[in-house]
Amino acid sequence: MRNHTLLCDFYELTMANGYFELGKGDEIAYFDVFFRTLPDGSGFAIAAGLSQVIDYIKNLKFTEEDIAYLREKGVFSERFLAYLKGFRFTGDIYAVPEGTPIFPGEPFMTVRAPSIEAQFIETYLLLALNHQSLIATKANRVVRAAQGRAVAEFGSRRAQGADGAILGARAAYIGGVNATACTITDKVFGVPATGTMAHSWVQMFDNEYDAFVSYCKIYPNNATLLVDTYDVLRSGVPNAIRAFKEVLLPQGITKCGIRLDSGDITYLTKKARKMLDEAGLTECKIVVSNSLDENIIRDIIAQGARVDSFGVGERLITAKSNPVFGGVYKLVAKEKDGVVYPKIKISENPEKITNPHFKKVYRIYDNESGVAIADLMCVHDEVIDETKPLEIFDPIETWKRKTCENYTLRELLVPIFKNGECVYESPSLAEIRDYCKDQVAHLWDEVLRFENPHRYYVDLSEKLWNIKNDLLGAKKR
Amino acid sequence: MRNHTLLCDFYELTMANGYFELGKGDEIAYFDVFFRTLPDGSGFAIAAGLSQVIDYIKNLKFTEEDIAYLREKGVFSERFLAYLKGFRFTGDIYAVPEGTPIFPGEPFMTVRAPSIEAQFIETYLLLALNHQSLIATKANRVVRAAQGRAVAEFGSRRAQGADGAILGARAAYIGGVNATACTITDKVFGVPATGTMAHSWVQMFDNEYDAFVSYCKIYPNNATLLVDTYDVLRSGVPNAIRAFKEVLLPQGITKCGIRLDSGDITYLTKKARKMLDEAGLTECKIVVSNSLDENIIRDIIAQGARVDSFGVGERLITAKSNPVFGGVYKLVAKEKDGVVYPKIKISENPEKITNPHFKKVYRIYDNESGVAIADLMCVHDEVIDETKPLEIFDPIETWKRKTCENYTLRELLVPIFKNGECVYESPSLAEIRDYCKDQVAHLWDEVLRFENPHRYYVDLSEKLWNIKNDLLGAKKR
Repeated sequence: MRNHTLLCDFYELTMANGYFELGKGDEIAYFDVFFRTLPDGSGFAIAAGLSQVIDYIKNLKFTEEDIAYLREKGVFSERFLAYLKGFRFTGDIYAVPEGTPIFPGEPFMTVRAPSIEAQFIETYLLLALNHQSLIATKANRVVRAAQGRAVAEFGSRRAQGADGAILGARAAYIGGVNATACTITDKVFGVPATGTMAHSWVQMFDNEYDAFVSYCKIYPNNATLLVDTYDVLRSGVPNAIRAFKEVLLPQGITKCGIRLDSGDITYLTKKARKMLDEAGLTECKIVVSNSLDENIIRDIIAQGARVDSFGVGERLITAKSNPVFGGVYKLVAKEKDGVVYPKIKISENPEKITNPHFKKVYRIYDNESGVAIADLMCVHDEVIDETKPLEIFDPIETWKRKTCENYTLRELLVPIFKNGECVYESPSLAEIRDYCKDQVAHLWDEVLRFENPHRYYVDLSEKLWNIKNDLLGAKKR
Repeated sequence: MRNHTLLCDFYELTMANGYFELGKGDEIAYFDVFFRTLPDGSGFAIAAGLSQVIDYIKNLKFTEEDIAYLREKGVFSERFLAYLKGFRFTGDIYAVPEGTPIFPGEPFMTVRAPSIEAQFIETYLLLALNHQSLIATKANRVVRAAQGRAVAEFGSRRAQGADGAILGARAAYIGGVNATACTITDKVFGVPATGTMAHSWVQMFDNEYDAFVSYCKIYPNNATLLVDTYDVLRSGVPNAIRAFKEVLLPQGITKCGIRLDSGDITYLTKKARKMLDEAGLTECKIVVSNSLDENIIRDIIAQGARVDSFGVGERLITAKSNPVFGGVYKLVAKEKDGVVYPKIKISENPEKITNPHFKKVYRIYDNESGVAIADLMCVHDEVIDETKPLEIFDPIETWKRKTCENYTLRELLVPIFKNGECVYESPSLAEIRDYCKDQVAHLWDEVLRFENPHRYYVDLSEKLWNIKNDLLGAKKR
């Protein structure tokens, strides 16, 4: 475990020193993590990264070396530096479980803590949640595009740094991929490692056929041959067929595979499938790679490409089409003498106005279909009687109203830390992945659409809506 | 230092086991790292990440735990696992120094090593070089767009993982930014940490004016106030002016700043500049942020925005407009009994055809102007007599020829490792940054253009060109 304590924006330290010097360090502040815009025009995003936030909070510690470094900056008081020696997180954190579908404007994490602590953890929390939510969301799109075909994550070499590769593969697994090429992610997180061969394997032998035969002899039960080093249809596939017949069939092995990493995937896979079938190799799988994403996958499937599984690299591991998940960390309330006071941030850009207050978020499920109807943000102490009809309304176009009946509420934000102690038992990664799949299955098909999905309702309770409008009015005067 | 040994694609291990079992593990292979396409339509890229490659190579080691994990996969021989226990890199690595402008098709790193070793390090080398070259290249665009104004890297919270933030800030510094918000990058690499305040600072006080006064009192010599929490021109700037007059001017301090993070930057900075000047605060700097990149910066400067420095976040730290640097790692030669045999990879996609052989790369500088004219790839043992005219030609349109006279050659690839020992003394990060700036200044203005830059010549020597064509012809038959 690396110490990420100094992976903070420098202003978090200067503000902390300021709060400390002003005697404001112990004032209780509430911060929400939320995002404003869905990547890729998706109908929803997938929350991920909570496990890394938990590790970070547990391991927060300024070393002597860190303190010495900060002292040299010449802007921090000695009293503050002494305070940092014993610094730890003593507050509360609430979050949605990893794998939960989330929507713009609603908190997927809330921090309640003394202002210095709450402010200090901003950067790492956002970094961990933004990165993995981005990749889990993208992976879920890719996996849904593949319509049941296996998807492997192949992107380490194009990832933005080691964590981009390692935790990106973890997030991709949450989003639904079956495997990764990233070995260390298998070792550390148990995401199954997979792989075939590189072009260099083929080039290392005197000819393609020798390369294939050698590989089949060493890995008879796992022989997927890369057939595009020289010429797919005139050399690669015929040599693969010869090698399979030479080495595998005499051993009674019929499971094998070829991989294509260039050229016209639809055309080449159709031709290759025909050649393999005619050779009796009907169980030979066809794996394709080469700059795939959800759009290309949908396209080649629609065109009848004969693909059994996809290897998806750079466009998944960097979420290339939209590589930023814009989660933000905003003060929503302050507490004094046990009373919580809502706070709002106004902005020249209306979409940057925040939803104030310490909140809870309910997901409303229709009991008949099991489908999620809407999310409802409430003030933290609001109670809803589930036996009664529940009227919800659009927070902008307030005349748009809907009454829910026969519904079940589920509170999305669950306690993760209480008074600095972790109270959450993280599910296994496989459980998170299953949970994600199940939750996505409880969304309307219209929300799952790739293009122009239906906007899922994220509403405010009447009470919260009134509080927000009062704050807006007060500030505008 | 984390152990990144298992940050490899799983196929590197299965291929390594294969070479080992076939007795091919000690055959000497040559691999080039190169890229095919410039990001963002740039005229050049900036190489970065070599220092991390050096650390990785020095620290390569399979732990007992790693071996145990691999054993459980059930695909590796015990002999191979025993071999991995003593595994280390014993080969040679050549690379261009960090900060060097590089161009498509030419190697910016070459590895010569026993095939197992050369193959095994593929993923990490690409990952480190791709990531940092991507960010250094983007940062250089942003810095050039700012036309001498300071640029600070502010993007940690949107980075793709911790290394994305930490090493991204390092690469941005190589590319020319002046500072970063990422504290740990200051501590570890000496990139100056900087920052202002968050909206939450303003919200933590009863009103904006109190927040500003408090900040000025604590940081009188470094007071940059965020003026857009409520209303820039009606509240933020007037309160900032009052606070500066109240706290700073009586102390004789005239250096201060305001930051804008939303709204119409051009309009607001013009108005704010006028208000500040009229208040006598002519030394007050204006810092802007909010989803900036090189295009927006060029645009607002062209429109007359009054900006002294830029904070650039998500669009720099993820290279948002083009978040993948497509460096690849390709076998270019094999060695037997001291003789080097060139290898080529052909492909259905012509741009994926490789430049074969163990090569050296010369940059040709014009002695009169000092400007780089072209790069020339040669066979490793070619010698060019600099006193004689040098004819170069386009490798596709071979009738396009140019004769260089009065030129100087510089060999770009320098030895980094010899027989597994590091023989390279890394310059300091500040030296790398200065070198980068100097090298960029030696490119034609036409290559520096943001849109449709002139394509810099990367040519093959006659000898290398003939070898490549012979290999292409032989394979095509």
